[in-house]
Amino acid sequence: MMEATARAYTNIALIKYWGKRDEQLFLPMNSSLSITLDQFYTTTSVQFCTCLSADIFILNGQLASEQETVKISRFMSLLRDLSGKKLYAVIDSTNKVPTAAGFASSASGYAALAAAGTKALGMDSDDQTLSKIARQGSGSACRSIYGGYVEWQKGDKEDGTDSYAHQILEAQDWNLSILSVLLVPEPKEVLSREGMKRTVETSPFYAGWLDTVEVDLNTAKSALQQRDFEMLGNVLEGNALKMHATTLGANPPFMYWTSATLDVMQQVKELRATGIQAYFTIDAGPNVKVLCQPKDEQIVQEKLKDIPAVQDVYLCHPGPGITYLPQSKKKNCC
Amino acid sequence: MMEATARAYTNIALIKYWGKRDEQLFLPMNSSLSITLDQFYTTTSVQFCTCLSADIFILNGQLASEQETVKISRFMSLLRDLSGKKLYAVIDSTNKVPTAAGFASSASGYAALAAAGTKALGMDSDDQTLSKIARQGSGSACRSIYGGYVEWQKGDKEDGTDSYAHQILEAQDWNLSILSVLLVPEPKEVLSREGMKRTVETSPFYAGWLDTVEVDLNTAKSALQQRDFEMLGNVLEGNALKMHATTLGANPPFMYWTSATLDVMQQVKELRATGIQAYFTIDAGPNVKVLCQPKDEQIVQEKLKDIPAVQDVYLCHPGPGITYLPQSKKKNCC
Repeated sequence: MMEATARAYTNIALIKYWGKRDEQLFLPMNSSLSITLDQFYTTTSVQFCTCLSADIFILNGQLASEQETVKISRFMSLLRDLSGKKLYAVIDSTNKVPTAAGFASSASGYAALAAAGTKALGMDSDDQTLSKIARQGSGSACRSIYGGYVEWQKGDKEDGTDSYAHQILEAQDWNLSILSVLLVPEPKEVLSREGMKRTVETSPFYAGWLDTVEVDLNTAKSALQQRDFEMLGNVLEGNALKMHATTLGANPPFMYWTSATLDVMQQVKELRATGIQAYFTIDAGPNVKVLCQPKDEQIVQEKLKDIPAVQDVYLCHPGPGITYLPQSKKKNCC
Repeated sequence: MMEATARAYTNIALIKYWGKRDEQLFLPMNSSLSITLDQFYTTTSVQFCTCLSADIFILNGQLASEQETVKISRFMSLLRDLSGKKLYAVIDSTNKVPTAAGFASSASGYAALAAAGTKALGMDSDDQTLSKIARQGSGSACRSIYGGYVEWQKGDKEDGTDSYAHQILEAQDWNLSILSVLLVPEPKEVLSREGMKRTVETSPFYAGWLDTVEVDLNTAKSALQQRDFEMLGNVLEGNALKMHATTLGANPPFMYWTSATLDVMQQVKELRATGIQAYFTIDAGPNVKVLCQPKDEQIVQEKLKDIPAVQDVYLCHPGPGITYLPQSKKKNCC
């Protein structure tokens, strides 16, 4: 049977991926750095089958929409091209990702699909190859191939062959606490893909972003090597603020924050004023993630839950990379 | 008697003054554009007197602090130098400025003092000269010499002789409504003087600010000539967002906004979504000013007052420039 099942975990960027230099190949304008998280993941089974004339995509137990299936099938065609095998598959994918809390399931989703799909095709890809493949589904997916602390080096080549992730530290090398703050939901006005495109094309601040992001990345990597949490926290918080500043200069300007976002930022500043090291980061949405050290995670979680606009706070730690699971007995095809 | 009394009104910048190229002479990095307001002002009497051996500064009916007196006296010495008269004065100044709503009294204060002080000394200065003098007390004071819509051209000379304001439109040429939203007060973490200095020196976004602010200024001036409110509103809101974006890139980063600031911004966006043209601007603090057309001022004021974090909303319109008042009977000296 040409089938395989893989699990991949979401990741949270400490130094943000913000802006593409190639929309088709998902090549980034800048390198980025993330932590793969232990609590949120996608599990995906892929069964290639000679009897199929198209891919079938089952998402969270239900047949996915045509739009979702088209996107997945485009990615599957990349695997068909790479393997030389013109076979279609049943893709059965389950997310354990709180998308409402601002976690995209695309990173863990495409990482799991790249791993399961290539294994089912017998491609025996190494992690670097998997990372390059996953990147072509969703940029940040290339980081979810690895556990712990991961850098995505942007690469310089036009074909993207030098744009992939690698591990900086393993999860167990440094245990940190990542609290994902779920705010009262509001619809997202500008999607991250649109937002980064508009920013790259129109914001007078995008050059300032590019001028400083590699410095931030090097500072963050030094902080990881030295296990210097204050240094890491300052650079990750500053980097997130800079990413969001670039959107304010876009034409038309836009903003991912709501007043609840600022309430969380203010609470984090107040925690620091009382001597508790906590730092925030924000992706392309209103929700906030707060980093602290395990010794402080309880008090930080309590203080965050006390904010009226906060619905819930999820606690994560650095987690593993791609994990292959035994095949389920379930037979989707033939 | 060498005495005079003048009144000057505060102004609100539509294109922001943000960054100094000379700290001593108050020379700006960029030109700016403002509306002088009709409701908030400072009235200042100056009496020069041979019997005094130092300036006496009375602020809002009380003897001012030593720190405040030193600042005012430094400015008076400029007038002494210009007039060649080595006399000290009693300066009696009353603010009708809601400083809690983010209005600095320094613009109206130094404009009124420049006007009353030079008149008392018999200097007979024209408005351009007054503007240059007022600028050396507080940059934005140079705009409060004039009523209506005012541009401060930054100038290029090192001695500041070409850095002064001039009127673009008179108050009665275009009546707009300016609503000043007073939020629940919080202490200001970073003063505007400090904030602009830190931003100029450390923010990677400051270059992007300078690259686009003159374009914004020209757009705003075109909008004034064409009385195109939508065009004016879009550029003033975008300009304010850009000014605030620069602070997010400073080292260390800082932010003038609170969650209440975002509540007001959100309400303004919602008003626009219902077809009411309203646009916000924000200075170096959390409070928001909203511009709309007089036909919409009532509904806008009501909607802003409905926001829980809003304490009060003051309504202004374009107002006059320097006004000289008859001398009070009150004799402060000899």
